[in-house]
Amino acid sequence: MSHIRGRFSKPAADTVVKYTSSLPFDWRLYKYDIDGSIAHAKMLAKQNIIGQEDAKKITAGLEAIAGEIECGAFEFKPEAEDIHMAVEARLLEIIGQTAAKLHTARSRNDQVALDLRLFTKDIISKTIKEACLLQEALLEQAKANQETVLPGLTHLQPAQPILLAHHLLAYFEMLERDIERLNNCLVGTNVLPLGSGSLAGVAYDTDRQFLAKELGFSKISTNSMDAVSDRDFVVEYLATASIIMMHISRLAEEIIIWSSAGFSFVTLDDGYSTGSSLMPQKKNPDVAELARGKTGRVYGHLMAMLTALKALPLAYNRDLQEDKEAFFDAADTTLSTLEVMAGMVKTLTFNAGKMAAATEEGYLLATDLADYLVGKGAAFRDAHGIVANLTAHAASSGKQFSEMELGEYQKFSPLFEEDVFKVTVASSVASRNSFGGTSPKRVAAALAEASKKLKEKKSA
Amino acid sequence: MSHIRGRFSKPAADTVVKYTSSLPFDWRLYKYDIDGSIAHAKMLAKQNIIGQEDAKKITAGLEAIAGEIECGAFEFKPEAEDIHMAVEARLLEIIGQTAAKLHTARSRNDQVALDLRLFTKDIISKTIKEACLLQEALLEQAKANQETVLPGLTHLQPAQPILLAHHLLAYFEMLERDIERLNNCLVGTNVLPLGSGSLAGVAYDTDRQFLAKELGFSKISTNSMDAVSDRDFVVEYLATASIIMMHISRLAEEIIIWSSAGFSFVTLDDGYSTGSSLMPQKKNPDVAELARGKTGRVYGHLMAMLTALKALPLAYNRDLQEDKEAFFDAADTTLSTLEVMAGMVKTLTFNAGKMAAATEEGYLLATDLADYLVGKGAAFRDAHGIVANLTAHAASSGKQFSEMELGEYQKFSPLFEEDVFKVTVASSVASRNSFGGTSPKRVAAALAEASKKLKEKKSA
Amino acid sequence: MSHIRGRFSKPAADTVVKYTSSLPFDWRLYKYDIDGSIAHAKMLAKQNIIGQEDAKKITAGLEAIAGEIECGAFEFKPEAEDIHMAVEARLLEIIGQTAAKLHTARSRNDQVALDLRLFTKDIISKTIKEACLLQEALLEQAKANQETVLPGLTHLQPAQPILLAHHLLAYFEMLERDIERLNNCLVGTNVLPLGSGSLAGVAYDTDRQFLAKELGFSKISTNSMDAVSDRDFVVEYLATASIIMMHISRLAEEIIIWSSAGFSFVTLDDGYSTGSSLMPQKKNPDVAELARGKTGRVYGHLMAMLTALKALPLAYNRDLQEDKEAFFDAADTTLSTLEVMAGMVKTLTFNAGKMAAATEEGYLLATDLADYLVGKGAAFRDAHGIVANLTAHAASSGKQFSEMELGEYQKFSPLFEEDVFKVTVASSVASRNSFGGTSPKRVAAALAEASKKLKEKKSA
Amino acid sequence: MSHIRGRFSKPAADTVVKYTSSLPFDWRLYKYDIDGSIAHAKMLAKQNIIGQEDAKKITAGLEAIAGEIECGAFEFKPEAEDIHMAVEARLLEIIGQTAAKLHTARSRNDQVALDLRLFTKDIISKTIKEACLLQEALLEQAKANQETVLPGLTHLQPAQPILLAHHLLAYFEMLERDIERLNNCLVGTNVLPLGSGSLAGVAYDTDRQFLAKELGFSKISTNSMDAVSDRDFVVEYLATASIIMMHISRLAEEIIIWSSAGFSFVTLDDGYSTGSSLMPQKKNPDVAELARGKTGRVYGHLMAMLTALKALPLAYNRDLQEDKEAFFDAADTTLSTLEVMAGMVKTLTFNAGKMAAATEEGYLLATDLADYLVGKGAAFRDAHGIVANLTAHAASSGKQFSEMELGEYQKFSPLFEEDVFKVTVASSVASRNSFGGTSPKRVAAALAEASKKLKEKKSA
Repeated sequence: MSHIRGRFSKPAADTVVKYTSSLPFDWRLYKYDIDGSIAHAKMLAKQNIIGQEDAKKITAGLEAIAGEIECGAFEFKPEAEDIHMAVEARLLEIIGQTAAKLHTARSRNDQVALDLRLFTKDIISKTIKEACLLQEALLEQAKANQETVLPGLTHLQPAQPILLAHHLLAYFEMLERDIERLNNCLVGTNVLPLGSGSLAGVAYDTDRQFLAKELGFSKISTNSMDAVSDRDFVVEYLATASIIMMHISRLAEEIIIWSSAGFSFVTLDDGYSTGSSLMPQKKNPDVAELARGKTGRVYGHLMAMLTALKALPLAYNRDLQEDKEAFFDAADTTLSTLEVMAGMVKTLTFNAGKMAAATEEGYLLATDLADYLVGKGAAFRDAHGIVANLTAHAASSGKQFSEMELGEYQKFSPLFEEDVFKVTVASSVASRNSFGGTSPKRVAAALAEASKKLKEKKSA
Repeated sequence: MSHIRGRFSKPAADTVVKYTSSLPFDWRLYKYDIDGSIAHAKMLAKQNIIGQEDAKKITAGLEAIAGEIECGAFEFKPEAEDIHMAVEARLLEIIGQTAAKLHTARSRNDQVALDLRLFTKDIISKTIKEACLLQEALLEQAKANQETVLPGLTHLQPAQPILLAHHLLAYFEMLERDIERLNNCLVGTNVLPLGSGSLAGVAYDTDRQFLAKELGFSKISTNSMDAVSDRDFVVEYLATASIIMMHISRLAEEIIIWSSAGFSFVTLDDGYSTGSSLMPQKKNPDVAELARGKTGRVYGHLMAMLTALKALPLAYNRDLQEDKEAFFDAADTTLSTLEVMAGMVKTLTFNAGKMAAATEEGYLLATDLADYLVGKGAAFRDAHGIVANLTAHAASSGKQFSEMELGEYQKFSPLFEEDVFKVTVASSVASRNSFGGTSPKRVAAALAEASKKLKEKKSA
Repeated sequence: MSHIRGRFSKPAADTVVKYTSSLPFDWRLYKYDIDGSIAHAKMLAKQNIIGQEDAKKITAGLEAIAGEIECGAFEFKPEAEDIHMAVEARLLEIIGQTAAKLHTARSRNDQVALDLRLFTKDIISKTIKEACLLQEALLEQAKANQETVLPGLTHLQPAQPILLAHHLLAYFEMLERDIERLNNCLVGTNVLPLGSGSLAGVAYDTDRQFLAKELGFSKISTNSMDAVSDRDFVVEYLATASIIMMHISRLAEEIIIWSSAGFSFVTLDDGYSTGSSLMPQKKNPDVAELARGKTGRVYGHLMAMLTALKALPLAYNRDLQEDKEAFFDAADTTLSTLEVMAGMVKTLTFNAGKMAAATEEGYLLATDLADYLVGKGAAFRDAHGIVANLTAHAASSGKQFSEMELGEYQKFSPLFEEDVFKVTVASSVASRNSFGGTSPKRVAAALAEASKKLKEKKSA
Repeated sequence: MSHIRGRFSKPAADTVVKYTSSLPFDWRLYKYDIDGSIAHAKMLAKQNIIGQEDAKKITAGLEAIAGEIECGAFEFKPEAEDIHMAVEARLLEIIGQTAAKLHTARSRNDQVALDLRLFTKDIISKTIKEACLLQEALLEQAKANQETVLPGLTHLQPAQPILLAHHLLAYFEMLERDIERLNNCLVGTNVLPLGSGSLAGVAYDTDRQFLAKELGFSKISTNSMDAVSDRDFVVEYLATASIIMMHISRLAEEIIIWSSAGFSFVTLDDGYSTGSSLMPQKKNPDVAELARGKTGRVYGHLMAMLTALKALPLAYNRDLQEDKEAFFDAADTTLSTLEVMAGMVKTLTFNAGKMAAATEEGYLLATDLADYLVGKGAAFRDAHGIVANLTAHAASSGKQFSEMELGEYQKFSPLFEEDVFKVTVASSVASRNSFGGTSPKRVAAALAEASKKLKEKKSA
């Protein structure tokens, strides 16, 4: 029976042990737990709370345990409640009673908060790195397809011609915001909770700034009750990951639609396609579909955490143990999805011919014709009406704009002149030259800017 | 390279294999997968689609595989995409080319739908069983505490005296509805999808009614496209489990509050309590807290599944693979929570003395005094006003009702007479004798009825 | 200051009145509140708790109030906390002090539970009716397009040819399950809570069976504490509505994709299309998009209610007031979405030519060719491999199956013979003749069955 | 029929008009819409796209419309689809055909994105202001209760004595993080989308930097497709508001528990209490309960928005219209909840006597005794065990620590000496003097720091 149960007359029921143990998942925190304990031991010795020799013994023991875990020799015993107890129990085996001094001026409440923040800091860094790799893949494709035109859609209906590079850069921008949010999340996470004790602070002359420096934190927490019950940083990561997955679900949806028989704008690499056990002809975009589907999983984890935190009184409550599995899975999902999407994007083959052909259909130049009329003196709203009628006429006679004669145009407005035929897909794209627009000039500048941003982040 | 990739020039990328493989979690379906395949083989032979000898060979091979998996001898190879392929690949090793005939008139789309429905049917039955065990624990405690009175609260404020048995039976009723919902969910799940093929039905003269009978389904699906893409039964289970967890979170909250120092209405068994690594005096209701916290997890899984299904076109899409992990975890969580709560409830010690003492305070008899005045001829709304003033007076003079003299009462209404002192906690509880009320008579009848219902379910 | 505040020294703060008042939304319950009060008054008189004359006066007063509200003459005063108090205050104005007798043997806790159940019963019935109308629209289109073939898709990739009617009937089936769930929800809602008082039952000799009969309930609640705090029926409706919206989002997604330039399988009626303020050519499927988007809204309301109920102790808590706005909006959204989708579906024009043309491409007959080989003696898995190679060859040479010569086929298997050219779209569809399959014969039977089911529901 | 429907043969169906109209809720954006249009007109004139006179006429017309709306004279006609069309239609009535020039170089897609960002910026500022007011209320109470001690709880069980001011400052810290997140959200929102056109940019020589300056934006968007479909800022606000509500739900829960009969740590002001229609004695914390319940509402809106955005292809889709109602309600809820909570907190009366009494019970000094033993040379883990046994003994003999004799202590460890009786609540609190701890010295410094932070924000 664990010493923690000192005042109890009997051990926990078997179902209770199984129900409450976090070791099956929190073992993942071992490295952070051990790093935190080593720093704690050093601080205790520095402050003469324990002896220097004790600290050395403890440190050596903890390092040995880290080694055991890494090489698979460590036995995770089911009766240890969590990774903290598992490590401490082993430390006792290795170095004997000195181990009992490590938990001075510390509680599992501030210890687990520490471990989780160290873990989160790493996860945020990894997520930023993977997001950059997806940005890089998008940028590569954008650069390789600078002249490719496709129908820009709104409501999945033809709207205006755009450059493929411009379209891909839209996702670059989304990821840019995601990275900004991850950086904000990092600031909130980068606060040392250790030293808060159970809830009230500790009754020892500790040096928390020393701990922060040892463990790489930029700040220390300012209220002990808050510090042990705060999981905002987890919710923030989950919300940020949810937005990342939302962005990816949009990209995935487009790849699925673009690779459908109706569009054929893009061909997936065989390495990123899957087949069917029944239908021999199938080439399915399963990766994009799974990425889209896994969006729900991350949203769900966000909701789980928010629900678990609702209406919890201060300070620590065991409900907080639910901060791990959902979070771990959300992080794993986000990281692997970013990684696999980068690989898929990088290997896409865009079918410029199909895209160009589709751009010639669907009356994509209607806005350009209205702008043309405005150029000739019409008010925009009037020009809009004229072209709407023209389009209805064209559609009912089965013609594209380019197939109509000047006389037909002029039936709808006398402002149409011969130069109406200079309104083309190329002129359309070139004309959208406002900042942020799809003109080749603007897109070239945007590509350069994106490259610069990416390079800066890499070198950071 | 899997035969499914017959038309591709290269294998799937490593990250893709890892990202798309479901074997790490869908191995749990092996029993259902094998049962389904055996039934399918029998049907194919019965319909002369394959030979009887082939069917026997296949059946023997599948039974051998089931044995291997159960004794841990089966090797789950990472390159198998899922449990279906893993089983089929092994079958090929064991019985040779005859294995190739099993997948006739079947697709993984209807196969996985079958496996998941068989699994769900089992899970529903188990959930009903565990819910009954929690009902039983509540009922036992209710029976053992038939005379215990406690303050009934609304808004966590003293409202009216009630019987503890009545309070506990409220949770019995919630679970009764949960079981009703589980039964409804079972009806929706109990439909055979096998025979729907990929999406369009199959081009063989199959006998789906035979399959349904073999596998214990009460109906067969009526539209093949719907059958392969329908996961309503999973959402229904998740919604039902969410309501169960919501109910349990309420019970857990009450146990946490009742065992707090402020209330001390209940003492947890040591076997269901946990201690602290720092504070030696602690006896914490971690089980109840975790149960409360895990509510979020199940809500989250519900949200994950609903999100994954949003806006999926027909028929099968790989997003549907996300139907498993969230579902499995929700089921495991619900089952273990019901189990551990039953154990905890069964071992609670109610502190009748504390409860009774609290009932004497807090002006719990105010409604009874108003009813008393109605009995003397006052309109209820007027009586309410009189007693409100009386209560304000009592509170400001620090007295309970029982500590006031008749004269004091009469300052607020001349209707008060000597018999006002017959208004007691006992008389209050006894008076709430309407059907569904807390009077000992009604509660005794309710206990008998609950016992009867529980017995019927057990013998069902 | 309301009489409810009898014991307080001052009125509620202005911000509190505004924050807590439910009148801005619960006025919608007025009819149910008044019906409930009339039945309650009758019961009180029948049981001699109030006089017959009082009951008549109360009833007349309440009927007058209903009339006032319906004709817009009723003044909803902000200081009334809720619809119950607003009605009661007006009753006092109209009939004087007799009004004060109405609230005998009743609390707002059981009163609001009653109102909400009456409302929910109506909403469920309306939802069933609207779901039937959408079924009818789908069925009409299915009947009108019995011979239309389109490419059945999985993973949005061509899979096998199917009948449009078969595809539309898949949605009929989903709605059939939705209606089943609504009926189950009705059973759970159809329980009278009135008579439970605040939480403990009432101290009067009431007749709850009489109330149930008057108000059309099939059962009465059996535990008063449960009855006033149970909102399962609301969660159940929200979960059911979420599944309905999920189904509709799938249909909406398909209509959006089918009406895209890439597919052009369907043309929206002008009455169900919208334009653009900028792009004159636009014809957008905004209705389908909004329906898809509003799915999130209903999911959100489900999550809101589940969260609000988490960890509430018994019995009534004010958190329960949050049961209304989310629920009302979810019901309004579901009803209007079903209605507008029915109108849109009914007016769709399917482009059979485009669908047929698409069916000729995409190697949709690959499974049929594999089945053909099985018919010639191949094992299915082997046949699958042969056709996979054949498809890869065809794709790389830019041919459809029908454009290849027998010799080319035979390079992949000697089993191919002249009759391979009898494998056509028509033969493919006809061959999927298993129960639930897409063959014309099965679909005709399914249409007849669906018509029968719909007629039965209408006459129910 | 709106000019937008120029190419259609008939008006939208009535149900469609009702289903798709956003005017019933987006009228709230009128001020932002008009501000945006005025800036747009100025820019068009500055760039010679329209004439100066036209711009003046347009500006005057728009200002007149703003006036009409503010004084209630504006008629919101149901046939106007949205606030943009409603304003434009009225402008046409007031200034005639010049109005038709306003929509040059603009689409509703970038217009609505602009309006929503302007609205969001205001909402964020308001939310920060309200959060500061709640911080202020907490700080006031903390300052007024600097010497009040209460039992610090973990798991709702007595843990260690703490200062009330320390406890209240924990919530100050949570709000501090909330404000930080709101500021981050503001940075993301503060980007001008106008000039992105429908999706591709505009074909006019616009000056977007001028627009940004006029409208107070710090940046302009860099990709037009992203700009019209980006709603990250809405999700970010909803996630931030969810965390705020989560924090408030914790505070609300504590107030509910503290004001329960079991604890009686706090008395609500009558102005923030509510009564019962049935039970005359009731004084309910309805405000705190509603605040707790409304947490679910904001979570739900977050989920709604995330779901609506899932898998939307670029660029604008009508699903995005769902960005308003949920967002508006979440903002209103968060603002009113912060406001009402500030009022409630400010008027709380803390019952220092009850708190102090509770601190003497519950073995809250157990950790201090363990620390005492560590001071005498014991290892912490050993000291923990000794005190656990001591506590079990005390509990079973019904004594508090202070009621035990030295001899009794020494039965558990010879390290106990006479000075053990110097371990008191006061010594305990004073000893937790680590940074962030509950010692009076630390708390005084924390109060000063909090005051300083608040003052800085106010003067910002």
